[in-house]
Amino acid sequence: MSQDKQQILKNTNAKLLDQFNASVMFDKELYAQDIKGSIAHSKMLALQEIITIEDQQKIEKGLLQIKADIEAGNFEWKIEHEDVHMAIESKLTELIGDAGGRLHTARSRNDQVATDFALYVQDKTIVIKDKLKVLISTLTQIASNHTETLIPGMTHLQHAQPINFGFHLLAYANMFKRDFERFESSYERNNYSPLGSAALAGTPHNIDRFKTAELLGFDAPTNCALDTSSNRDFALEILFNISTSVMHISRLSEELILWSSYEFGFVKMSDEYATTSSIMPQKKNPDVPELLRGKTGRVYGNLMSLLTVMKGLPLAYNKDTQEDKEGVFDSVATMEISLDIVTAVMDTLIINVDTMEKACKVGHLSATDLADYLVQKADLPFRTAYYITKDVVAVADKLGKDMSELTIDEIRLANSELKDVNEDIVEYLNLRNSMNARTSFGGTSTQRTQEQVEYFNTWLSNN
Amino acid sequence: MSQDKQQILKNTNAKLLDQFNASVMFDKELYAQDIKGSIAHSKMLALQEIITIEDQQKIEKGLLQIKADIEAGNFEWKIEHEDVHMAIESKLTELIGDAGGRLHTARSRNDQVATDFALYVQDKTIVIKDKLKVLISTLTQIASNHTETLIPGMTHLQHAQPINFGFHLLAYANMFKRDFERFESSYERNNYSPLGSAALAGTPHNIDRFKTAELLGFDAPTNCALDTSSNRDFALEILFNISTSVMHISRLSEELILWSSYEFGFVKMSDEYATTSSIMPQKKNPDVPELLRGKTGRVYGNLMSLLTVMKGLPLAYNKDTQEDKEGVFDSVATMEISLDIVTAVMDTLIINVDTMEKACKVGHLSATDLADYLVQKADLPFRTAYYITKDVVAVADKLGKDMSELTIDEIRLANSELKDVNEDIVEYLNLRNSMNARTSFGGTSTQRTQEQVEYFNTWLSNN
Amino acid sequence: MSQDKQQILKNTNAKLLDQFNASVMFDKELYAQDIKGSIAHSKMLALQEIITIEDQQKIEKGLLQIKADIEAGNFEWKIEHEDVHMAIESKLTELIGDAGGRLHTARSRNDQVATDFALYVQDKTIVIKDKLKVLISTLTQIASNHTETLIPGMTHLQHAQPINFGFHLLAYANMFKRDFERFESSYERNNYSPLGSAALAGTPHNIDRFKTAELLGFDAPTNCALDTSSNRDFALEILFNISTSVMHISRLSEELILWSSYEFGFVKMSDEYATTSSIMPQKKNPDVPELLRGKTGRVYGNLMSLLTVMKGLPLAYNKDTQEDKEGVFDSVATMEISLDIVTAVMDTLIINVDTMEKACKVGHLSATDLADYLVQKADLPFRTAYYITKDVVAVADKLGKDMSELTIDEIRLANSELKDVNEDIVEYLNLRNSMNARTSFGGTSTQRTQEQVEYFNTWLSNN
Amino acid sequence: MSQDKQQILKNTNAKLLDQFNASVMFDKELYAQDIKGSIAHSKMLALQEIITIEDQQKIEKGLLQIKADIEAGNFEWKIEHEDVHMAIESKLTELIGDAGGRLHTARSRNDQVATDFALYVQDKTIVIKDKLKVLISTLTQIASNHTETLIPGMTHLQHAQPINFGFHLLAYANMFKRDFERFESSYERNNYSPLGSAALAGTPHNIDRFKTAELLGFDAPTNCALDTSSNRDFALEILFNISTSVMHISRLSEELILWSSYEFGFVKMSDEYATTSSIMPQKKNPDVPELLRGKTGRVYGNLMSLLTVMKGLPLAYNKDTQEDKEGVFDSVATMEISLDIVTAVMDTLIINVDTMEKACKVGHLSATDLADYLVQKADLPFRTAYYITKDVVAVADKLGKDMSELTIDEIRLANSELKDVNEDIVEYLNLRNSMNARTSFGGTSTQRTQEQVEYFNTWLSNN
Repeated sequence: MSQDKQQILKNTNAKLLDQFNASVMFDKELYAQDIKGSIAHSKMLALQEIITIEDQQKIEKGLLQIKADIEAGNFEWKIEHEDVHMAIESKLTELIGDAGGRLHTARSRNDQVATDFALYVQDKTIVIKDKLKVLISTLTQIASNHTETLIPGMTHLQHAQPINFGFHLLAYANMFKRDFERFESSYERNNYSPLGSAALAGTPHNIDRFKTAELLGFDAPTNCALDTSSNRDFALEILFNISTSVMHISRLSEELILWSSYEFGFVKMSDEYATTSSIMPQKKNPDVPELLRGKTGRVYGNLMSLLTVMKGLPLAYNKDTQEDKEGVFDSVATMEISLDIVTAVMDTLIINVDTMEKACKVGHLSATDLADYLVQKADLPFRTAYYITKDVVAVADKLGKDMSELTIDEIRLANSELKDVNEDIVEYLNLRNSMNARTSFGGTSTQRTQEQVEYFNTWLSNN
Repeated sequence: MSQDKQQILKNTNAKLLDQFNASVMFDKELYAQDIKGSIAHSKMLALQEIITIEDQQKIEKGLLQIKADIEAGNFEWKIEHEDVHMAIESKLTELIGDAGGRLHTARSRNDQVATDFALYVQDKTIVIKDKLKVLISTLTQIASNHTETLIPGMTHLQHAQPINFGFHLLAYANMFKRDFERFESSYERNNYSPLGSAALAGTPHNIDRFKTAELLGFDAPTNCALDTSSNRDFALEILFNISTSVMHISRLSEELILWSSYEFGFVKMSDEYATTSSIMPQKKNPDVPELLRGKTGRVYGNLMSLLTVMKGLPLAYNKDTQEDKEGVFDSVATMEISLDIVTAVMDTLIINVDTMEKACKVGHLSATDLADYLVQKADLPFRTAYYITKDVVAVADKLGKDMSELTIDEIRLANSELKDVNEDIVEYLNLRNSMNARTSFGGTSTQRTQEQVEYFNTWLSNN
Repeated sequence: MSQDKQQILKNTNAKLLDQFNASVMFDKELYAQDIKGSIAHSKMLALQEIITIEDQQKIEKGLLQIKADIEAGNFEWKIEHEDVHMAIESKLTELIGDAGGRLHTARSRNDQVATDFALYVQDKTIVIKDKLKVLISTLTQIASNHTETLIPGMTHLQHAQPINFGFHLLAYANMFKRDFERFESSYERNNYSPLGSAALAGTPHNIDRFKTAELLGFDAPTNCALDTSSNRDFALEILFNISTSVMHISRLSEELILWSSYEFGFVKMSDEYATTSSIMPQKKNPDVPELLRGKTGRVYGNLMSLLTVMKGLPLAYNKDTQEDKEGVFDSVATMEISLDIVTAVMDTLIINVDTMEKACKVGHLSATDLADYLVQKADLPFRTAYYITKDVVAVADKLGKDMSELTIDEIRLANSELKDVNEDIVEYLNLRNSMNARTSFGGTSTQRTQEQVEYFNTWLSNN
Repeated sequence: MSQDKQQILKNTNAKLLDQFNASVMFDKELYAQDIKGSIAHSKMLALQEIITIEDQQKIEKGLLQIKADIEAGNFEWKIEHEDVHMAIESKLTELIGDAGGRLHTARSRNDQVATDFALYVQDKTIVIKDKLKVLISTLTQIASNHTETLIPGMTHLQHAQPINFGFHLLAYANMFKRDFERFESSYERNNYSPLGSAALAGTPHNIDRFKTAELLGFDAPTNCALDTSSNRDFALEILFNISTSVMHISRLSEELILWSSYEFGFVKMSDEYATTSSIMPQKKNPDVPELLRGKTGRVYGNLMSLLTVMKGLPLAYNKDTQEDKEGVFDSVATMEISLDIVTAVMDTLIINVDTMEKACKVGHLSATDLADYLVQKADLPFRTAYYITKDVVAVADKLGKDMSELTIDEIRLANSELKDVNEDIVEYLNLRNSMNARTSFGGTSTQRTQEQVEYFNTWLSNN
C-alpha cells in the first residue's frame, strides 16, 4: 500500500498537474476567435493612444501569421502553454518581441476568455441557423410533392385519422422553425462584448469598450464587469437550444426507424444511408437515424453538466468554469453534423406511397368522419353518433372491410338509425375526402398543406 | 410467491389503474385556464353559428358557476373523472344538460389540454417577470446605498481587487435582468393558440381559430395541427428559464451563506430569516439561503425529466406527455416562492459595512494598481512591474501591513527601481482610490456604479 | 413597482416563510419510521438507565397511540410543526407530559432524520424486491408457455434471426433479476444505524448504539458521526436503482406499444389495460405502457435533483439536504405502482402467436443459417458463403418467397456453387430448426430456453 | 438557399457519413481488451476443434504483434475501419491471411463489443479501487496526526461544536470507503462474460462459453444472449459509482477552497497545487480543488447521457448504444486523475493548527455542553437548561469572551439558577474537554477517533 502511495505521489508531478489544469488541448478550438478578439483590442488600444500604431501593426501582422500557421497545421500546441490564449501570446512575443507583451494592456485572461467563448457561440449560432434553414427547405420541398399522399395519422402509435404525408413532414418543419427562432433570440439577447471587463472590476486604462464591441460585431459592451466574468448564460442557452433541436431530430429519427421496419414499410433509406450487416446479407439497418436518436443523450448530458458546474458558484471567476467549453464544443459539433446528415437522409429518402396509402385502409380511419356526419347532417347528439359508429365498425370488421370500403347498403344495415341515411355518406367515409375535409387553419387538407408549403417558402426567402 | 402474485393482480384492479392513469389530482391546477379556454371556444362556436347563442350563454354561465365553486372550495375532485377537463365537462352537463355536450364540438381533448397548458405557462411567465422586477428593484435600491462601501472583489474565493458592494449587487441585477428577458422572449415565441387543432389534423367544422386566439390573448393560432398536438417546447423553455434563474439565486445564496459565517461576518440575516438551533442557543443558521440553494436540484431535475420524456416520441399525441405537467407546476411554484423569499431576505439584510471594509485590508488588494502605476507612470514593462510589486508585497508582509497602508518611505525601500518613485503612488495604493480608478464602462468606480443604478431605475420604469 | 414590492414583502411574512421552510407536509410519510426509531431509542435509554422504565413505558404507549391515530386519520398535521418529528414530539408531550421531553435526550434532529430516512429506504427496498420477484415470476410463467413460439429476433428494429417468444421475455427477466440484485446489494451496504450520532459529533451520554441498531434491524451503528449527518449515499443509490429498473420497464413498454400497433399486431393489451378514444370508437390505445415509458423522465429527474443538491456541500448538516426526500418518495411510489401495473399488463396480455410466427417469414431470417451451413458443411470461406447467401436472397425475393420456403431445386439454381448442395440444406433453412440450432449456453433454442425457465424457477424459490 | 442545400448534400458524402458512423477514433481505447478477448476466443475455438491449433497459434501471434505495434505507436488508426474491432481484424488478416478470418467464427460484432466493453469496465474498476485505497490511506495517516487538533465542527457553515481535525478527515475516509464498496459490488454483480452470445440468439457452433469466461477472468458466461446484446447496466453502474465518488471529492474540494480563503485560513495548499495570478502577484489560487469541484458536472452529465440513450430502446442491439463508450471513457479518466490529484493535494496540505484552534473560540462551541451539564448534573429540564445557556451566552458576549473562557464567578452571576453551580462546570466548558466528552461510538473524542484510525488501518491491510 505505502508503495502504491509513493508511486502515486511521484507520478502526480508537475506533468500530471499540468495535464489536469491545462485546457489548451480543447480550447485551441477558439484560436480564430482569440485572434480576432486580440486584433480588435489592439486596434482600440492604438485608437486610444494606449499603444502606438506601429505596435498595433506588428501585433496584427503577427497574429495573422499565427492564424495562417495554425490553419496550415504548422503550429505546435503544447500542454505547457496551458491554454489557447497563452499559446498564441507566447508565440506572438516570440515573433514580434516586446510589442507582443503590450497587447495584454487593459485586458485580463478573464475577459479575454469570456470574449473568445462568446464570439464562438455567436459564430456557431449563425452556422446552425443556416443548417436549420437547409433542413426546413428540404422538408418543405418533399412536402410539396406529397400533399396528396395519404398516410395514417397516429396517436398512441395507433391509426387515428388519414392525413397527407406532406402535412406530416411540415410538423417537423414547424419544430425546426421554432428551433431557428430560439437560436435567433439567444443570439440577440447575448450579443454583448465582454472585452474590457478585465479581471472582475474594469480597468483604470482609458479604453473604449464600444469600439471593440463594434469591431467584433457585438451590439454593445456588457454592463457590469463582475457579472461578465462569471456569466455563462449564453453557453447554457446554446446547450439548451441544441438539446431541444436534437430532441426534435430524435423524434423524426424514431419515425424513420419505425417506417423503415418490415412491419411499416413506409420508407426506405437510400443505400448510402442504410448499413448492411456483416453476417446477414439480407439486412439493411437504419444505423444513421438510430445514431441520430442516440445523440440526444450526449447533448442532454452536456446541458446537465454545465448547469451542475454553475450551481452555487460565488462571484466572480472560479476555475470550475474552465469546464464550460468541452460540452459546448461537443454539442455544437453534434448539432452541425446531425443537421447535415438528417438533411441528406431526408433528401434521399425513398417514399413508398402505395404502402402508406394501403395502411390507411386499416383501422377505420374515417370513423370520426362518420360521427361528425351524424352530428352535423343527421343532427344526432354526439354520444348517439358515437355508438352508431361503433356498430358500423363492427359490421365492417365482420365483413373484413375497412369502414371506407363499405357500400351504402352495408352502412344502412349496420344500425336502425342509419336505415334511411343519405348515400352521400359513402363519400364522407372516403379516406381522401376525409383528409381533405379538415380545412380548419392548420388542418391536414391538401389545400391547407399547400398553404403551409407557401408559408415556408416565403419564410425561407425572408430569412 | 404465487400468493403474492395473486395479491398484486387482485390489487391492480380498476382502482389502481385509475390512480395510475388519472391526472386530475394534479392537473386541476389548470381549472382557470380550462374554463377560460372553454368560454372562448363557445363564443367562437356561437359566432360561427355552430351552436346557438342560447347554448353559448348557458355554457358560459355554467362554467363561471363552476369556477366560483372551485374557488370557494365547493367542488369535489374525483379520481374517476380522470382529468380536470372531464371533471369540469361532466359537472357542466350536470348543471346545464345537453348544451354542455355541444361545447365539445370541433374540439378534442388533445387541443384542449395543449391550450390549457399553454395558457398556464403564459400566465405564470407574466407573474414570474413581475417578481423578477421586484427583486431587481430591491437589489438596485440597496446598491444605490452602497456605491461607496468597499468589499473585497474575489476570484477563486481569494481577495483580488477592492470593489464596492453596490457594484457586487448589481452583478446579480444584471443576471436577473437577463432572466427577465429570457422569459419575455419565450412568452413571445410561444404565444400561439393550439385551440382548434383538434385531435391531430384539424376539423371539418367551420371554426375560426383566429377568433379564439384573440379571445385568449394569443397572437395567432398555431400553424400545424399535427405539430401542435405533440409540441411541448414551450414547457421545456419555461423549465430551462427557471433553471437558469434558480441557478443565479443559488449563487447569491452561496454568497449569503459565506458572508454570514463567523469567518466572513459581512452580513447578518434578519432574525425572521435566520433559524435558531433547537439545542444550541447561540446559533443562528442561514436555513433560508441554504434551502434556496438546494432548490436548484429540484428545478434541474424537472427540466431533465421533460427532456427525457420527449426524446424519441413519434407523432402525434402519446400518453407519455401526461408527464409534462407536474414538473412545470413544481418548478413554477418553486420559482415564485424563491423569488419572494430572496427579495425579502435581501430587503431585510443587515450589512456590516465596517467588516467588509476591514476585509479589504487583507490581501494587498491594490497590487494590480501598483503594477498599473509602474507601467503607466514609470513606463516599465509589465513583467518588471510584476516583480517589483512582488517585492512590495513581501515588504508589507514583513511589516505586518497591507500594501495600502505603506508609507512612501517603505515603498521606496522595497525595490531599487522604486527609490525615486513619486509620492503620489501612495494615493494610488489607497483602496478607495483603487476602486474609483476603475472607470471603464461596466467598471466598479462609484460613478460607474451610480450610472448602473440609474440604468436599472430607467429600465424598471420602462418595463 | 414600489407598491408591488411592498406587497411582496408584506406577503412574505412568517406564514410564507413557514411554508418555505416546513417539510411536514411531505415528510409525514416517515411517521412509522419516526415512531419506530423513537421507541427503540427510548428502550435503549431505559436499558442504559438514562431514563426510567416508567418513562419509557409512557413514551412507548404514547407513541403507539399517536401511530394508531395517524393511521385512523385522526391526527392533524400542521405546518407550524415544521416537520414530522416535531409534530409527533409535541403531540407526545401533550399526551404524556414531561416524559415526552426526555425522549430527546442524547439525540439530535440530525440523527433522528437520518435514521427515519434510512429506515424508510430499507423498508421500501424490501417492498420493491418483492414486487420485482412477482414480475420475474410472471414473465417466467408466460415464457414457459412460449418456448416454441417463433418471433422475429430483431436488431435495429429489423428482422434478424428467428427466436422464441419465451426467450425474448426471459431477456427482461434477466434485467429485472439484475435490478433485484442491485437493490439487495444497496440494502446490505447501507444497513447501518445513524441513531446516536447526535448533531454531528456524538454525545457525552452513555448510550448504546449497538442496541438501537439491533432493535431497528440494522447490522451495526454507523462509523463516524460527522459523516453520518451529511451522508445521503443510500438515497442516491435507491434513486439510481429505480432509474435503471424503470429504464428496463420503459424498454418493455416500448416493445408492447410497437407490438400492439396495427403494423406489428403481435399482442393485444387486455381491455382493462387499453383505453378507448373519446372520439374514435374504433381505437384501443396502449396508454398504460406509454405512461410507464413516460415515468422514466420523472425518476431520472429525481436522481439528477439529489446529485445536484449534494454537489459541493461542506460538512456537516446543511438545510439543502431537506430537499432529499420528495424525490425519493416520488421515485419509490412510481416504482411500486409501475411494477404492479406492468405485472398485471403482462399477466393479462393477449399473445397473437400466429401473427408472430407469420412475421418470421419476412426478411429471410435463416440467412445466417445458410451462411453457417456453407462454412461448416461445405467448408467455404465466410466471405464466399456471404455472397452465395446474397444470391439465394435475391432468388427468393424474385419468387416472392421467404428463404425458408425455397425448395431444394430453387436453392440449387441460385448460385453455381450450390448446384450439388445436399438436400438437408432445406431443413437448415426451416425457421423452427434455425431457432433450435442455437444451442450455445444462453442461446435461443427451446431446450436452452426451458433451462432458463428452470433457472428462474429455482432462483425464485431460493430468494 | 438552394445553393447551400446543394453544398450540404455534396459535403454529406461518404466521408462525412463515415465520420458520423465510425467509432474507431474513440473506441481504440479498447484495443487491449479486444485483443485479449480475441485470443481467448481463438483458444476456445481450438480446444473445441472448431479451428486448428496452427490457426490459433497464428492468430495469437498476430494479435500480440498488433498489440505491440499499437503500444509502440506504430499502428495507423483509420476512420475507414469504422471501429477498433474491424481495424484489428483487418490488420490481422493482412498479417496472417485466411486464418485471420476464422477468428470470427461463432462470434458476432455484438458480443465482441459487449465483451470488450465489459472487460474495460472491470479492469478500470480495479484501478479505481486501488486509487481509492491510496486516498483513504492518505486521509487516515493525516488524521492519525490530528486526533487532538481542534477545529470548529459546523452545521449550516456556522460553528456548532468543537471536534478534532482527524475526525473531520475520517468522515471523508468513510465516504471513500463506501465508494470502494460500491465499485466492489458492481464488479462482482457484473462479472459475467458476454462472449458467445453472438448477434442476439446464440450460435449453432459447439462453443464453450465457460472456457472463454474463465480465460477472461469472468465468473461465468451471461445467461441470455438477447439480454446480453442490449445490456448496458454495467456501464450505468460505473457512471453512477463515479458520480457519487466525484460528488464526495467535490465536497472535500469545497472545504479546501473555504479553508484556504483569507477568512478561514485553516489550510494552505502547497505551492505546487496553488496557482499564482498572472496580474496579481500576491494571489495564490486554489485552482486545483476548484477544477476538482467543477469535474462533478462532467461526470453527472455522462451518467445522464447514457440513461437517456437507453430509455425506451427495443431489443436487441440498436446503433444508439454506440453512444455508450465516450462518456464512460471520460468519467473513468476523470475519476483516475481526480483521485491522484486529490491524494497529492491532501498529502502536501499545510495545516494551520493554531488558526483552527483559535477559531473554536468563536461561537460558544461548548454551549451544548453547558446545557447537557445542567440536565445531567443539575437535573434541570432541557427547556430550562436551554434558557439558562442563552443567558450565559449573553454574559460572555457582553464580556467579549467565548463561553469557554468564562470564570466560575462570571458563570454563577449569569443566571440565578447558577448561583451555586459546582465549579467543575468550568472544566465542562473547556473546548478540548468538550470534544473529548463525545465518547459515544462514532463520536469525536480523541480516543474514538484513534479507534477509527485503527479501524481504517486494519481495513486497508485487509483489502
